[in-house]
Amino acid sequence: MTNANRQWRLAARPDELIKESDFEWREDAIPSPVEGEILIRNIYLSIDPTYRIWMNEGESYMPPVEIGEVMRGGTVGVVVESHHSDFQPGDIVQGLLGWQDYALDNGTGIVKLFKDASIPLTHYLGIFGGNGLAAYFGLMDIGKPKEGETIVVSAAAGGVGSLVGQIGKIKGCRVVGIAGSDEKCRWIKKLGFDAAINYKTEPVSESLKGHCPEGIDIYFDSVGGEILEAALDRINLHARIVLCGLISQYNASEPVPGPCNFANVLYKRARMEGFIVLDYLDRVMEAMTDLGTWLFEGKIQYRVDVVEGLENAPRAVNMLFDGSNRGKLVVTVSEEPPI
Amino acid sequence: MTNANRQWRLAARPDELIKESDFEWREDAIPSPVEGEILIRNIYLSIDPTYRIWMNEGESYMPPVEIGEVMRGGTVGVVVESHHSDFQPGDIVQGLLGWQDYALDNGTGIVKLFKDASIPLTHYLGIFGGNGLAAYFGLMDIGKPKEGETIVVSAAAGGVGSLVGQIGKIKGCRVVGIAGSDEKCRWIKKLGFDAAINYKTEPVSESLKGHCPEGIDIYFDSVGGEILEAALDRINLHARIVLCGLISQYNASEPVPGPCNFANVLYKRARMEGFIVLDYLDRVMEAMTDLGTWLFEGKIQYRVDVVEGLENAPRAVNMLFDGSNRGKLVVTVSEEPPI
Repeated sequence: MTNANRQWRLAARPDELIKESDFEWREDAIPSPVEGEILIRNIYLSIDPTYRIWMNEGESYMPPVEIGEVMRGGTVGVVVESHHSDFQPGDIVQGLLGWQDYALDNGTGIVKLFKDASIPLTHYLGIFGGNGLAAYFGLMDIGKPKEGETIVVSAAAGGVGSLVGQIGKIKGCRVVGIAGSDEKCRWIKKLGFDAAINYKTEPVSESLKGHCPEGIDIYFDSVGGEILEAALDRINLHARIVLCGLISQYNASEPVPGPCNFANVLYKRARMEGFIVLDYLDRVMEAMTDLGTWLFEGKIQYRVDVVEGLENAPRAVNMLFDGSNRGKLVVTVSEEPPI
Repeated sequence: MTNANRQWRLAARPDELIKESDFEWREDAIPSPVEGEILIRNIYLSIDPTYRIWMNEGESYMPPVEIGEVMRGGTVGVVVESHHSDFQPGDIVQGLLGWQDYALDNGTGIVKLFKDASIPLTHYLGIFGGNGLAAYFGLMDIGKPKEGETIVVSAAAGGVGSLVGQIGKIKGCRVVGIAGSDEKCRWIKKLGFDAAINYKTEPVSESLKGHCPEGIDIYFDSVGGEILEAALDRINLHARIVLCGLISQYNASEPVPGPCNFANVLYKRARMEGFIVLDYLDRVMEAMTDLGTWLFEGKIQYRVDVVEGLENAPRAVNMLFDGSNRGKLVVTVSEEPPI
């Protein structure tokens, strides 16, 4: 815990991979809440590929972070001081409170979390946060898996992909995962994936052919680029392509062309659909009920990769792009209070 | 009428635009039907962009036409001789009987048409054929227009696009058409389109901005390429992109990259879906009932461009690619019998 409010502010729009110099490290005074406000100390900062989108100029699905602003980011924290009747000191809350130690909120930007010693707080940024919602609604609502179908998942060892594959197995599908190391491939096979492809050492298109003898019914994509193209080559009639992310192109400084076999969407009468978890906030409980049940019954596993210290947040984002994270990536900002 | 069976057979896989030398002109003997067979004389041959796909090697949504085979094509013809109890000489039938004067069928590849002097036979290859089904189900089933939404249609003066726009107006939408000449633009505005863009003389992206002040909810695409990209730039949240065709790339000899702003499908949580009318054959009557009613009530108009003579079929296909056709393109093969 510090006596200052340490912050990473956006200093420059990155060119390709982010550099630490794209941010400015500042130590501000801890802000004081006025009537109606709550002061929160952040405990964990979620590290997500989408941060790279927010750092670019121009609208995507949210406005970009402006130069000079505290970098936006998903957080779990504890209420330190409250002048708002709905929140008490000690409450654990979730929000988009940014890359900093302390933040003020008027109650509209935070949600109080259920304190339960059996649920690690980091889960609220992962399986019970955006990752869980993305996996659950992306697969169930957009992918609509039917028993016996074949699902292919990219970024399969990540916070979203690993859940997609496990939910796919629960739904009776054949699941093939694509990941970036032998360790990741071994891990997803331990989770129950029927097959795993290491895209750094195997020809993805050939491997997909071997592992998907009956073609691909659902492709759950978080990467885009060549892997999307390889998957599109093998889609079945009426396949669903769930667009969850396009991490392969977030660092691009030039426009990236779409897949060359894009015509397959037409020929195979496929449906390609993008979604953002923000669209499902009113259905959170649906996902949480199923995910919670599966997790506590041991039917799904979830892995969190913790990086210590807010000062390491910029480096942590790059771990997503070089694939060195193992599961959902989280940065510790300060210590958890005793529950 | 001839005493031979004139045919265009595929002689070579075309390189970019088709040439007459990609076909072989043959005059075979008129075939004789045996027990269970029907001999049909073709009257009209439909000319469709998809022929260009069928001439390429490799599977698309149908097997390619093999070298040496009579070129595949949609036809309306008259039964000349029948050894099948369901068909009588004089019956008018529709099928995929190819680029030739005469064909045999065993009854499974043809459908008997309703003879009505008020319905031009060419309509069965257009508004009451594949064009009508594509426009109707593509817009209604995939696009799902809601009153007040904005629909953009490419190839808007063609056999499909002109219907899409008119159905869109019936459904209470704002409709903007993109076509390739001032004459075509004038015509679609006469049909009721709210605005028309001549892509050969106007910057499509800028014009779309002006004509779609509230963005694009449905983009009905038959062309792909730059126009698809311009439309994707302006889609609204939860937009639907109906992929009916990709005519801009059918002649390409190299793989064509998808749109560079493909990420907008994700950011705008859009749905991009391909379809082929073959998937809707069991729902034909649904479309025909509505289209027939609207046509006879004068709520929609439909224009047919007739090219005389089977010998001109290869040239007619190219008219689709240089945009010189005006509406649904049909080649006359032989004379209509009196009704």
